[in-house]
Amino acid sequence: MQTFKDVQSTERFSVEKMQKIALFESRNFFCDVYCLSPGQTQKPHKHLHEDKIYLVLQGSGSVLIEDDERPVQEDDICFAPAGSIHGVRNNSDKGLKLLVFMTPNPNYSQSR
Amino acid sequence: MQTFKDVQSTERFSVEKMQKIALFESRNFFCDVYCLSPGQTQKPHKHLHEDKIYLVLQGSGSVLIEDDERPVQEDDICFAPAGSIHGVRNNSDKGLKLLVFMTPNPNYSQSR
Repeated sequence: MQTFKDVQSTERFSVEKMQKIALFESRNFFCDVYCLSPGQTQKPHKHLHEDKIYLVLQGSGSVLIEDDERPVQEDDICFAPAGSIHGVRNNSDKGLKLLVFMTPNPNYSQSR
Repeated sequence: MQTFKDVQSTERFSVEKMQKIALFESRNFFCDVYCLSPGQTQKPHKHLHEDKIYLVLQGSGSVLIEDDERPVQEDDICFAPAGSIHGVRNNSDKGLKLLVFMTPNPNYSQSR
């Protein structure tokens, strides 16, 4: 696995749906870039065992964690602990790009 | 624990040593901001069980992972897998600010 990347050039927007671009992963975590075009959302959902972190890399929108929905912009960072309802909306007129960490990595859950 | 923060205002530089500012943590991870003044380093070291990610938030320097030391700047992201030697140097003349994830959280290791 390549160990040096840059988030600036990691970008893919689609009018179809939110795009997820994988950067790194192990059994312990995955790290992706999410790209949301205007109007796109990651619907509120929860993970029983996994924590998630969102860092806004570019653009603005809103992040929901439990019953707390807040406007977010570049450099805002949000923690959705395991079991909490969370989601993202791009309610702006420009692209919204997020760095996302999830830990542990649910793709390895059967072996844990 | 506060779930919304911003990395822009999370900053503390010291001429004494590299500063670590805690943002979020759980059993699964911790997420800190590291601030290195010019000339400061995080010496090469390794963790047997924990993965680490560095994202450069501001400034420039160099990151070592195993035998690969590379110049890094804002928006570069680096993955140091468990067991790999890794470290950071601020060889620039300005502050270097990094977002750091470590997973799992070594502070909880006795209970794992």
